[in-house]
Amino acid sequence: MSARYPLPAIEGLPDDLRAKILEVQDKAGFVPNVFLALARRPAEWRAFFAYHDALMTPETVGRESGLSKGEREMIVTATSALNRCLYCVVAHGAILRIYEKMPMVADQVAVNHRKADISPRQRAMLDFAMKVCTDSDKVEDADFEALHAHGFNDEDIWDITAITAFFGLSNRMASVTGMMPNPEFYLMGRVPKAKSA
Amino acid sequence: MSARYPLPAIEGLPDDLRAKILEVQDKAGFVPNVFLALARRPAEWRAFFAYHDALMTPETVGRESGLSKGEREMIVTATSALNRCLYCVVAHGAILRIYEKMPMVADQVAVNHRKADISPRQRAMLDFAMKVCTDSDKVEDADFEALHAHGFNDEDIWDITAITAFFGLSNRMASVTGMMPNPEFYLMGRVPKAKSA
Amino acid sequence: MSARYPLPAIEGLPDDLRAKILEVQDKAGFVPNVFLALARRPAEWRAFFAYHDALMTPETVGRESGLSKGEREMIVTATSALNRCLYCVVAHGAILRIYEKMPMVADQVAVNHRKADISPRQRAMLDFAMKVCTDSDKVEDADFEALHAHGFNDEDIWDITAITAFFGLSNRMASVTGMMPNPEFYLMGRVPKAKSA
Amino acid sequence: MSARYPLPAIEGLPDDLRAKILEVQDKAGFVPNVFLALARRPAEWRAFFAYHDALMTPETVGRESGLSKGEREMIVTATSALNRCLYCVVAHGAILRIYEKMPMVADQVAVNHRKADISPRQRAMLDFAMKVCTDSDKVEDADFEALHAHGFNDEDIWDITAITAFFGLSNRMASVTGMMPNPEFYLMGRVPKAKSA
Amino acid sequence: MSARYPLPAIEGLPDDLRAKILEVQDKAGFVPNVFLALARRPAEWRAFFAYHDALMTPETVGRESGLSKGEREMIVTATSALNRCLYCVVAHGAILRIYEKMPMVADQVAVNHRKADISPRQRAMLDFAMKVCTDSDKVEDADFEALHAHGFNDEDIWDITAITAFFGLSNRMASVTGMMPNPEFYLMGRVPKAKSA
Amino acid sequence: MSARYPLPAIEGLPDDLRAKILEVQDKAGFVPNVFLALARRPAEWRAFFAYHDALMTPETVGRESGLSKGEREMIVTATSALNRCLYCVVAHGAILRIYEKMPMVADQVAVNHRKADISPRQRAMLDFAMKVCTDSDKVEDADFEALHAHGFNDEDIWDITAITAFFGLSNRMASVTGMMPNPEFYLMGRVPKAKSA
Repeated sequence: MSARYPLPAIEGLPDDLRAKILEVQDKAGFVPNVFLALARRPAEWRAFFAYHDALMTPETVGRESGLSKGEREMIVTATSALNRCLYCVVAHGAILRIYEKMPMVADQVAVNHRKADISPRQRAMLDFAMKVCTDSDKVEDADFEALHAHGFNDEDIWDITAITAFFGLSNRMASVTGMMPNPEFYLMGRVPKAKSA
Repeated sequence: MSARYPLPAIEGLPDDLRAKILEVQDKAGFVPNVFLALARRPAEWRAFFAYHDALMTPETVGRESGLSKGEREMIVTATSALNRCLYCVVAHGAILRIYEKMPMVADQVAVNHRKADISPRQRAMLDFAMKVCTDSDKVEDADFEALHAHGFNDEDIWDITAITAFFGLSNRMASVTGMMPNPEFYLMGRVPKAKSA
Repeated sequence: MSARYPLPAIEGLPDDLRAKILEVQDKAGFVPNVFLALARRPAEWRAFFAYHDALMTPETVGRESGLSKGEREMIVTATSALNRCLYCVVAHGAILRIYEKMPMVADQVAVNHRKADISPRQRAMLDFAMKVCTDSDKVEDADFEALHAHGFNDEDIWDITAITAFFGLSNRMASVTGMMPNPEFYLMGRVPKAKSA
Repeated sequence: MSARYPLPAIEGLPDDLRAKILEVQDKAGFVPNVFLALARRPAEWRAFFAYHDALMTPETVGRESGLSKGEREMIVTATSALNRCLYCVVAHGAILRIYEKMPMVADQVAVNHRKADISPRQRAMLDFAMKVCTDSDKVEDADFEALHAHGFNDEDIWDITAITAFFGLSNRMASVTGMMPNPEFYLMGRVPKAKSA
Repeated sequence: MSARYPLPAIEGLPDDLRAKILEVQDKAGFVPNVFLALARRPAEWRAFFAYHDALMTPETVGRESGLSKGEREMIVTATSALNRCLYCVVAHGAILRIYEKMPMVADQVAVNHRKADISPRQRAMLDFAMKVCTDSDKVEDADFEALHAHGFNDEDIWDITAITAFFGLSNRMASVTGMMPNPEFYLMGRVPKAKSA
Repeated sequence: MSARYPLPAIEGLPDDLRAKILEVQDKAGFVPNVFLALARRPAEWRAFFAYHDALMTPETVGRESGLSKGEREMIVTATSALNRCLYCVVAHGAILRIYEKMPMVADQVAVNHRKADISPRQRAMLDFAMKVCTDSDKVEDADFEALHAHGFNDEDIWDITAITAFFGLSNRMASVTGMMPNPEFYLMGRVPKAKSA
């Protein structure tokens, strides 16, 4: 299906997009397809990555988060699997493996977070994210209290919600436009000597 | 639930947020709650409204869309109703009524778009949006072809997808944080002399 | 679709149907379409409205109900929205607005009763009605106890159940036969000077 | 659960209820529980059985139906099974066996109408009834056309819809109030010498 | 559909299959169709019935089970009904009636086990089986504890799980291949003088 | 949860189980946990692996299959992912990678087989398997015809059905008993020098 929305050439992109994309390429060794797939519409691209960074690298917008980098990626991997988004599960599973230095946890949370080798706090975090993903209309005080019991505060819950919601957007764009994960992602973080971001 | 995330005072907000919010207030006669609710996190606020404008007022980013203003709001109203998001159904139903100058269509697409008084083309557009909303993993070539048959091209389909996806994000944020629609929205566009936005 | 089942002319109807319909018209200023749509079959019409009145105006059959008029209409509006029945949501939302003198509550319970501005007792009542609507086979003692805790007795629970069940019938008839709400309903109870019902 | 709503004594009932109940008892050899369970509220009882008779014995209200007696009971049995209503599946399965003189067909349509030993026309009828039962909001022209292809006209489709809708009401009342099928029903129509109904 | 997979003649079957089938015929008075339907593939037949016997007649493999014969058949009947498998509901409903000497319990657990005339322990057992049937990924410690509270130990829970899982296999084979229940099953155990199995 | 059902020591197992397990260990370099987890009940173990081999290595029972080894594993991986069974997705994903020599296809069919890099024939095969997995009661002639159009015959369809059904059993046993995939599986077939299976 991706033939409908061919990836634009990097050279033709606006300067700010090209600069960021080359920076990512430099760091990761390749350009993740999402950067090119969305670049067909620069205004949406800018908003997408600004939103992404505000949530996933909060320190870049002067904010601290109660969630670790790995926990944020767990949310992305688990909820993207629930939405059956190939691109996001494979790409963010890779990042999760690298951040957590646990080569198996990404596959586990993608298949069934209830069986994953994670902490009870992380389990509660993913339970909540799954509910936001499929039944946000039913989220209630009791759901907040379940997270408070694990030490999450309301700002952390905003984070879990926003990350789930943002990648729900990403999942829908990737699935409908037929975005395919770069081959590099499949193996990242699985073998000890991985040298990627 | 909204007590968890109290609305910030306009005065304390960063200049760019305050300016835009005052501009909206000036035009609409009130500040829609989403502008204040998200302002607690300026970086996310900026990305959210940049994304919103890139999709909902494409002319502001130098782009034309094959969807009319009213059609874009129909997508928002119908998919937000599927997600049972009170804020978005009431607020965007209001905007839809004003844009289409059809006081009944918003309630119709919110309750059951299959029974709404809309064109076959709009019906096909909403059928697709509903599938993106709940089953984006199952979208296939046949779904594209059904829209092509009604004159939509692949850029229009990107629009339908992105609007559905973006408001899926918005729905989850609004439902979880307990965002309530401003009372003004309920009546907007229902009575002939409405003079708002 | 309603072309399949055209509304009969009032003049040709049996006397008792015509009398009641003219009485309703006199009071409301128009004839709600359900009165004509079902009149094609007088025996079913008589049973339908006899059942309706036994549940919705219990005083007319010498019974008192622990539910207020507004609460009964809330049940109708919320469960009809779950069944996505355009006619019943719009018509009974209008009646609900008039009875409760709360112009916003009908839209709220239609979109998401969990976010509506209603009492905890009403919330429990609607939670139960929603379960009767979609999962009546799973109703159990615990569901009764949850309602008892809010002061409902078993006769009240019969009322909630029967209203939900009766309008489930009504929803199916309206959706399949393509019954459309009269335009008058959309605005009723939204503007202060409404003089209907 | 039925202890909540004990069956009233026949003697204390209003004359018209008592007369009909004794007539049924005379014919069937026992009083089906639904007659007593609903009698706690005579006005609802009268409407319920008037509606029932208008649909299930149309000749009593001067109407002919394109559905046979057995077909009407098939609809009841199949949709009541979908709603998991014990009373209606057992009671109407019994009546179906007697009407069709096919001792196995009731169990077949209750478990899976797609595998039942019925005609293609009956299969189409039940497919439609199942959709009315669970997805009435999605019924469309194409569903009518599928039935027309089997010789059903729009009045027949009204019948299928109304029977499904009416027994959806009945299923909800029976499940919530804990109505239990009379033991006599289980065996009726299974053994050649059955002399009931 | 069964025309696709015609039942093989008993005479042509391998000796061990033929011997077992004749033994069953001798005992039951007829050959249940599953024995012939699966015999088209002897290796699968042998594994299927070896598995079946290990679970359903544990004494034949030197094991005792905490579940009674009737309880095991209740699990089969209830979960096969959830999977809408005609063959298994009718055949195992028959065996259940015979084992429990309760002619009504099979129909009850097939339609709605929550309304069946069974013990609280059996109700808990079936609640768990239903969850294994549809949501095995969500089974957790709390589910085990609910069964422990009724006196089931972990070996009993293995039994409930394995029986549900095995007949889930059987349901899928029977439904897809169009296996029809023998007419004899429908009446077995319903009439006092039944002399079968 | 696996603490409930500790893996037995190989030494204490019956001779035939021990022999097969040591043979597997010899070939794979480790003992896949399913061999030990099920060994707690030798009769069930024997039936399980006899069934497994009859379906997955048909040549060992003198049968040829129209499905390739890789296609059989695709079915297992895709349907186990639908059932969210961690053990089977990880273990059979590994075997699939090795058989197909395509390191990415297992992750693809596990996340969303509609986006996987497979042939239209394999796509049709997995569409059917998914329906058998979740809606076997709805499988009909049209589903058979869709597979015939891709060259599958009725024996192949039996294979697809039986593999899906058998691993549905396996998924339920693994999820409920808390079977965890051996760490070795996660990387198998992902790196060129893999020397297993």
